[in-house]
Amino acid sequence: MENTHNYILPKTNLIGIGAIKDLPNELLSWKLSKVLIVTDKNMISLGYVENVEKILKSLFISYDIFDGILHPNPTVSFVEDGLTYLNKGLNIFKRNYKLIISIGGGTNHDCAKAIATVATNGGSIINYEGYNKVTKPAIPQIAINTTAGSAAELTMFAIVVDNSRKVKMTIASPFLTPFISVNDPIFMTTMPREVTASSGIDVVSHGIEAFVSTEASPITDSLALEAISLAIEYLPRAYENGNDLEAREKMMFASIMAGMAFNNAGLGYVHSMAHQLGGFYNQTHGCYNAVLLPYVFEFNSVSIPEQRILKLCEAMGAITHNRSQAVDLIIDSIEKLRATIEIPSKLSEMGLKESDIKTLSQNAIKDICSFTNPRQGFVEDFISLFKAAF
Amino acid sequence: MENTHNYILPKTNLIGIGAIKDLPNELLSWKLSKVLIVTDKNMISLGYVENVEKILKSLFISYDIFDGILHPNPTVSFVEDGLTYLNKGLNIFKRNYKLIISIGGGTNHDCAKAIATVATNGGSIINYEGYNKVTKPAIPQIAINTTAGSAAELTMFAIVVDNSRKVKMTIASPFLTPFISVNDPIFMTTMPREVTASSGIDVVSHGIEAFVSTEASPITDSLALEAISLAIEYLPRAYENGNDLEAREKMMFASIMAGMAFNNAGLGYVHSMAHQLGGFYNQTHGCYNAVLLPYVFEFNSVSIPEQRILKLCEAMGAITHNRSQAVDLIIDSIEKLRATIEIPSKLSEMGLKESDIKTLSQNAIKDICSFTNPRQGFVEDFISLFKAAF
Repeated sequence: MENTHNYILPKTNLIGIGAIKDLPNELLSWKLSKVLIVTDKNMISLGYVENVEKILKSLFISYDIFDGILHPNPTVSFVEDGLTYLNKGLNIFKRNYKLIISIGGGTNHDCAKAIATVATNGGSIINYEGYNKVTKPAIPQIAINTTAGSAAELTMFAIVVDNSRKVKMTIASPFLTPFISVNDPIFMTTMPREVTASSGIDVVSHGIEAFVSTEASPITDSLALEAISLAIEYLPRAYENGNDLEAREKMMFASIMAGMAFNNAGLGYVHSMAHQLGGFYNQTHGCYNAVLLPYVFEFNSVSIPEQRILKLCEAMGAITHNRSQAVDLIIDSIEKLRATIEIPSKLSEMGLKESDIKTLSQNAIKDICSFTNPRQGFVEDFISLFKAAF
Repeated sequence: MENTHNYILPKTNLIGIGAIKDLPNELLSWKLSKVLIVTDKNMISLGYVENVEKILKSLFISYDIFDGILHPNPTVSFVEDGLTYLNKGLNIFKRNYKLIISIGGGTNHDCAKAIATVATNGGSIINYEGYNKVTKPAIPQIAINTTAGSAAELTMFAIVVDNSRKVKMTIASPFLTPFISVNDPIFMTTMPREVTASSGIDVVSHGIEAFVSTEASPITDSLALEAISLAIEYLPRAYENGNDLEAREKMMFASIMAGMAFNNAGLGYVHSMAHQLGGFYNQTHGCYNAVLLPYVFEFNSVSIPEQRILKLCEAMGAITHNRSQAVDLIIDSIEKLRATIEIPSKLSEMGLKESDIKTLSQNAIKDICSFTNPRQGFVEDFISLFKAAF
């Protein structure tokens, strides 16, 4: 009888062109003394970190910068380096950070969430793998986002690779939700084409997986469908011309809305499987999703009510009243978009070795994203899906 | 060039059948000592307050109950009575409340917001009329909702009548946003038919005004349109049979989604005008909205892009490619729904006196809801609208 659909989101989400200018006002009421910025060297050279430094200086808030995130696949070692930095600081008087500001894409926000969590909960980030293992609030975090894809700036998830086990861990807890998210498309125009592509198609996979999830609600449905529509329309434009600010803005909204949806509805097998690939090889997360999405969608389609398949098809720009035709149109639409933004169509082109498929499948079925997939499969189903996408 | 669409919402929203059972878990991490419950005698006699008392007792949290909200039109005197109670308590050891829990519909949440605001900011609630006049965080609030309409449990608005000026004040500030909202349709089955009707049609007016607002964004659009669709379909069922739990659940979602939309997109002239009527006479807010909505929509329609009018029409269940036909269909749909749930069609049936129209219009144009209306009118336009709806 019980049927709950709790909805969690940062209380304050600064969104739109110029949104960063609202940040000082938000910081004012915090009476902050010490801030740790978590970022990477690219964000520094692009000048984005300096933007935030100016704000902090104008408010007389002292800060240190941890820029030890070295590549876009977040690892336990980045988190541990961040914690070492956090505990030592550069200056004895600057320890005891009251706030963490992450600047960048999903990797930086995820590492910052992990650092903020271990800082207050103790132990190692590995202890918190899974759902609701975190017991104390993390250090408050403000996440300033520079990509349109992961939505990590507003979710309760952190994805961190444990290289010792070759596992991409999901740490999920409402305590990981940032206090404030900032999405200003001005910060997104410098995304390289391949990042626009891989993070942009991630939005589509978030939208579709949230919509077909067993935990979907009318709230997440409406956000997911509109996110998908926007991404189908504007991702090719943002990919074609990174300075097309309208396309960047629309992709930003798509990313935010898909994030609001999957943060509360959960995801599915595309993400369970992509997480494993991310643990084994080094291609970008969004690219794995792009390849897996059509195969997983076809596998799931028997478990999705007809009316929902037709609605999804309509959101992707095609109208039909025939169920199986709708499934085909949805798959076509994903494949066409993937080709337009030049993402490979097979996992073998992204490092997958056939001999790893069994282990990857055994790990994928245990990933927390699997629990909300609309069709529950066996390890053999994962093996078949990996082989189909091979 | 700047174009921001900040999005504010309680971080945690407990939603769905049985959602109240998640409340103890949320309260655990707060380490609370003293709570003030703000409610009315009806909520006590329905047993809803006892439900919350049991939760507080099980967590060894002491509490007092202020049940001085005497009718569904929130007044400054209720707020002042609440503040007197808050400052005195029943017992010297129970003062210094760390949390306010409001139980009821919009009136109770709005009074609680006002009490929580003045408790920390000082002065009188009259000092905070308008947008962003509140400078300090209010006492944290959890709002447990028992109607499907106002969405006050999750918004940054409090509406309070200043009887001395016969003005329904809007107090708007992110600081008024409750920390946690609770929407459990189990608490909504006892809504009397006339409350189901008036609060339910309020959802439609929130959805439409948020969708046509000058501050609308893709996020608020998708939520508003789905809220409207749900209300058009399920409000007649919830009105017909209050125990229809599916209809109650769908109306709850509609109310939440419309609230998420207007909290961030703002409202328009329907609300500016209804607020004035609420200050002068004593009919329920939602009923005034229901009468005004078609007239204001027709007035606004010239300023709404064609594509948006067609989309709204589709959300209301009719499809056309003709703009003026769409306007007619939207108005028909509102009028049909209003008749089905037995709300009068003219303001003269709800206490409006023709001699008051000029004053009401002069006040309406100053209401903060007017600023986001898509067509900006003069006092004469308000007079014409009131007269048309007379």
